[in-house]
Amino acid sequence: MARAEGTCVPDLQKERAKCTFNKEEITNLMDGGEEKTLFRRKLEDFFLSDPEFLDPIPPEYLSHEDRYSNELRKACYMIRKFNEDEDVQQIVGEMEGIRTLMGSGLGVALTRDGNPLALHYVMFMPAILGQGTVDQQGIWLGRAWSGEIIGTYAQTEMGHGTFLRGLETTATYDPSTQEFILHSPTITSTKWWPGGCKCCVGECGVTVGEIGPRLGMNTNDNGFLRFDHYRIPRTNMLMKHSQVLEDGTYMKPANDKLAYGTMVFVRVAICFDSHRQLQRAVTIATRYSAVRHQSELKPGEPEPQILDYQTQQYKLLPQIATIFGIHFTARHVWDTYNEVTGNINEGNLDLLPELHAISCGLKALSSSDASAGIEICRLACGGHGYLSSSNLPRIYTTTTAAITYEGENTVMWLQVARYIIKSYREARKGEKLCHSVSYLAAQPVSTHMSTSLSNEALVEAYKTAVSAIVTETANRLQKYCDQGEQFELAWNKCSVLLVKCAQAHTRYFTCEQFVENVESLELSEGVRNVLRRLCRLYLIYHITLNQGDFLRSQALSPENISTLEGEMCELLEVLRDDAVSLVDSFDIHDRILDSTLGCWDGNVYNRMFNEAQKSPMNQTDVPKAYSKYLRPLMKANL
Amino acid sequence: MARAEGTCVPDLQKERAKCTFNKEEITNLMDGGEEKTLFRRKLEDFFLSDPEFLDPIPPEYLSHEDRYSNELRKACYMIRKFNEDEDVQQIVGEMEGIRTLMGSGLGVALTRDGNPLALHYVMFMPAILGQGTVDQQGIWLGRAWSGEIIGTYAQTEMGHGTFLRGLETTATYDPSTQEFILHSPTITSTKWWPGGCKCCVGECGVTVGEIGPRLGMNTNDNGFLRFDHYRIPRTNMLMKHSQVLEDGTYMKPANDKLAYGTMVFVRVAICFDSHRQLQRAVTIATRYSAVRHQSELKPGEPEPQILDYQTQQYKLLPQIATIFGIHFTARHVWDTYNEVTGNINEGNLDLLPELHAISCGLKALSSSDASAGIEICRLACGGHGYLSSSNLPRIYTTTTAAITYEGENTVMWLQVARYIIKSYREARKGEKLCHSVSYLAAQPVSTHMSTSLSNEALVEAYKTAVSAIVTETANRLQKYCDQGEQFELAWNKCSVLLVKCAQAHTRYFTCEQFVENVESLELSEGVRNVLRRLCRLYLIYHITLNQGDFLRSQALSPENISTLEGEMCELLEVLRDDAVSLVDSFDIHDRILDSTLGCWDGNVYNRMFNEAQKSPMNQTDVPKAYSKYLRPLMKANL
Repeated sequence: MARAEGTCVPDLQKERAKCTFNKEEITNLMDGGEEKTLFRRKLEDFFLSDPEFLDPIPPEYLSHEDRYSNELRKACYMIRKFNEDEDVQQIVGEMEGIRTLMGSGLGVALTRDGNPLALHYVMFMPAILGQGTVDQQGIWLGRAWSGEIIGTYAQTEMGHGTFLRGLETTATYDPSTQEFILHSPTITSTKWWPGGCKCCVGECGVTVGEIGPRLGMNTNDNGFLRFDHYRIPRTNMLMKHSQVLEDGTYMKPANDKLAYGTMVFVRVAICFDSHRQLQRAVTIATRYSAVRHQSELKPGEPEPQILDYQTQQYKLLPQIATIFGIHFTARHVWDTYNEVTGNINEGNLDLLPELHAISCGLKALSSSDASAGIEICRLACGGHGYLSSSNLPRIYTTTTAAITYEGENTVMWLQVARYIIKSYREARKGEKLCHSVSYLAAQPVSTHMSTSLSNEALVEAYKTAVSAIVTETANRLQKYCDQGEQFELAWNKCSVLLVKCAQAHTRYFTCEQFVENVESLELSEGVRNVLRRLCRLYLIYHITLNQGDFLRSQALSPENISTLEGEMCELLEVLRDDAVSLVDSFDIHDRILDSTLGCWDGNVYNRMFNEAQKSPMNQTDVPKAYSKYLRPLMKANL
Repeated sequence: MARAEGTCVPDLQKERAKCTFNKEEITNLMDGGEEKTLFRRKLEDFFLSDPEFLDPIPPEYLSHEDRYSNELRKACYMIRKFNEDEDVQQIVGEMEGIRTLMGSGLGVALTRDGNPLALHYVMFMPAILGQGTVDQQGIWLGRAWSGEIIGTYAQTEMGHGTFLRGLETTATYDPSTQEFILHSPTITSTKWWPGGCKCCVGECGVTVGEIGPRLGMNTNDNGFLRFDHYRIPRTNMLMKHSQVLEDGTYMKPANDKLAYGTMVFVRVAICFDSHRQLQRAVTIATRYSAVRHQSELKPGEPEPQILDYQTQQYKLLPQIATIFGIHFTARHVWDTYNEVTGNINEGNLDLLPELHAISCGLKALSSSDASAGIEICRLACGGHGYLSSSNLPRIYTTTTAAITYEGENTVMWLQVARYIIKSYREARKGEKLCHSVSYLAAQPVSTHMSTSLSNEALVEAYKTAVSAIVTETANRLQKYCDQGEQFELAWNKCSVLLVKCAQAHTRYFTCEQFVENVESLELSEGVRNVLRRLCRLYLIYHITLNQGDFLRSQALSPENISTLEGEMCELLEVLRDDAVSLVDSFDIHDRILDSTLGCWDGNVYNRMFNEAQKSPMNQTDVPKAYSKYLRPLMKANL
């Protein structure tokens, strides 16, 4: 049942019978190959068949502390399991398997509200791996892997997040004892948000606690941490790249661009996380839309599936297209990242600034697209999407956090804008530009518009439109500077438009990647056809949403837009018949979907009813509170 | 402290000193007059000074059942209070005071997660008032008021929401006993969502329970209800408008447009609720943005208030403008409603269809604007906005529900579209149109654009743009019909564009109302100036967001849009200095804001820290779960 087995309701049978392509081929494509699909399924089956990972009571019913306790139980059990069992070790493998167990794939099924120990494995250990010396790795890695020591990664403070130079916590070196003295001089210097803090043992000089409930991820163990002149040995500093010597001499890292690498890695990981969350949401909403019947399409006929309504198709199908758009672009950035980090070792860092800009843009685009798309999916399920048992609330509250963490999106957009404006200015000086911004150097296209609306023509239209926005914004910026405004203040006065430049540029980049992948990948005809339609939908959808940019630059004419609107409506109708099969091809295990509305078999209403029966308040004839408060009130008035 | 008393942090002092207008005048304007402000403040002070309404532990820490119990305790106490104390009765007054106690104003401070008995007062009792005969009111109203009987309003079923004709529950009249037999023939006929159901006493033939946790409003007492051939007396049917006689004869209501009235009332109430929620969110985010310092604006200078960043101003100030835009329009609809219901009694129902269309559009616009705006405010507070103690999560999860309930927004938009298309066709036949759509009858304006960008010119541009969208969509619809498509199917094929027509029309209508109110209301010069700026921002903001509509119809030129973009940036800079004073003028009591980030005194970081200390997990040195699960794991590996 969990994976396309057993029977499903007739509505879904009918949908699945219409499939025009090989689902497994898309599954493999998204996993990165057939072998990776098999590995993933094996890991999922192994862990999901273990009853220890079931929640006796759905977490929403529990108190904050009991929720935490329940997730910590499972997190500790998970670690024991891969410490003690060699078979498991083989299945899990090393870090990649761990990330799956704690991430947005399998992880969300095992520890639904967030794994209290996740940061230990995905931040603390990678920090030791990436920044610790070989000696330090020898001392700490094994103990960290087994759970003998549990660490945190404490960077953000109450008063400062993205702006790292503003951090207030001090580490003062005392050569007499060869120790660092860690100190929190102000309330705003309190480390705030770091995961794993609650687990830190409070020692003299260290105050730890949890920061309280949040919109989501409430068992993710976010804590606070304060130091009162707390001493640690000099050798606790991770010294692979920079060092403090015994006498206090500070040794700079050999190359300060190295920090880019980790940031790119983390940001691409966020893209994949975001698009997996959007996959879950759109799977739920699409299956539900095939099962739900409502209202009238033709008078006198039975109530249609709500998937038959164009407005519903318009909510769901662009999300499916977005998933592929983000996927192909993130994969491209990932491959380029590996190429560049290869080059770092050979000393070639030329591609780093471009890659950094792309990864910033893609992090912002994917987290905001995914968050907005998930809410569209939730709202597309009406009232039932508001129920926790649909799981759409949790998917949203988890995903939206990515807009803020690891580089707040507005800050990300402005970093992209900085790269774009720099490139634009270089182009004006005749310098050669990197591939992703090379269109900025192109001669202005003739204002006579192309009569073709082919994919290539549309990508050209994107370039023309973005180029026009960038040119206008750069001119506005220059005008302020020419009027004597300091560059930074002029920049601030243009920043709303600069954000827009960055967004338009990043969107264009995903469009180009989508087109290139769909045409160049080795695909069966059925898969290529459906992906071509999705690609086309993606291109047109974003043109119609931002039609002002295309009209203003004369990249497209009003008639072009009307034609594209008509084509979009036709695409929705054609793609509708593949909608359920497309979400099936994301191959999300029912336990990972975790939704009464989205299960593979479509048995929606019985599941909703049965799930409600789990409420502790439904275990007694009347809730206890009723006898305590309401009955006396009613009687008092008899 | 709660209401602009005591000291505040220097950053807020500085902001408040810059105020260019009389705050109290705006407070009175929003309340509907000085007297209403005084009444509201008296009610707030009275109830908020009562320690029984304090939560010993913040609700987020409690289990689902304990949260419910805590809110029911307060709800029952509230009822006792206004039953037993004549002073309170005088302060509360009748239904208006009750609505305040349970609504988005004072209500959210008294029962933070939703009042379990709210539906009883805001739906059950009004139903008896509006649809019960005088006899029935005599029997039930007094008992309902005192809490002796607690009722529900059970309409929505698991399988059907907005489409009422699809409801499956049956009420079969049995003349032999003069009873109705209520029955739920299928699982999808289960009444699902009705508030107050949990409190229904389960009797033989009735199954009740709660439907489980939700994204928000978890103590709002949403339940399910099933009937197994359950009998009630014929006289339990509310018979003011329609009747079933003893022999089973059904008597239709005299006028079937009467149902419009209640719907308009409820939808306007949602507009006011939504804009009050947006007021709370933008108050929190604006004050926080004045207190939060981050990053660099000029190199070497101290970190600026984040309110100094144009991108931050662009997030917050349009929300403040939206509040006034929605407020003036809702007030207009409210006044027209009262005028029309006056006319109903005189038999004049001509204005009802227009009013119904406007109220549908405004319900959809205000709930979606408010929800989107609240998320923008939350995200504008960075990570701290994700904390429950900021209260932004709860404000969002409560407000977004209004997109779905009382007429799902997409359905609302399509109802507006139906009215627009009908009016468009009437105009083509030369018939006279109602005021709000009269622009559809206007001759197409010359494509030579106006050189003025005055408010009046911009409102004209809105009309031209909407008119062009409507014309194109109507033509597309006609084309499908001419090709032999059935009207309903043609309608569906155009429905994405029809939704757009409805949205553009409703936006234009709010713009016009905003301009008219700002110019015609009796205001001091300071207040008029700041409202004029906000109005101007509102007009321009939505033009730039939808510039394609204006360019496509040649209502505005690309140069006009550039000019307006420049003006918008200047407006943001000017309005920035009044931002804190504007949110102050919403006069929201600290307890109603309920936010560590938004309090009047700006003491943000201490409040955050103190609020975190309330976590039950911070009451012991290490959480219990740590000793139970983590310590054994760590020891096992020593």
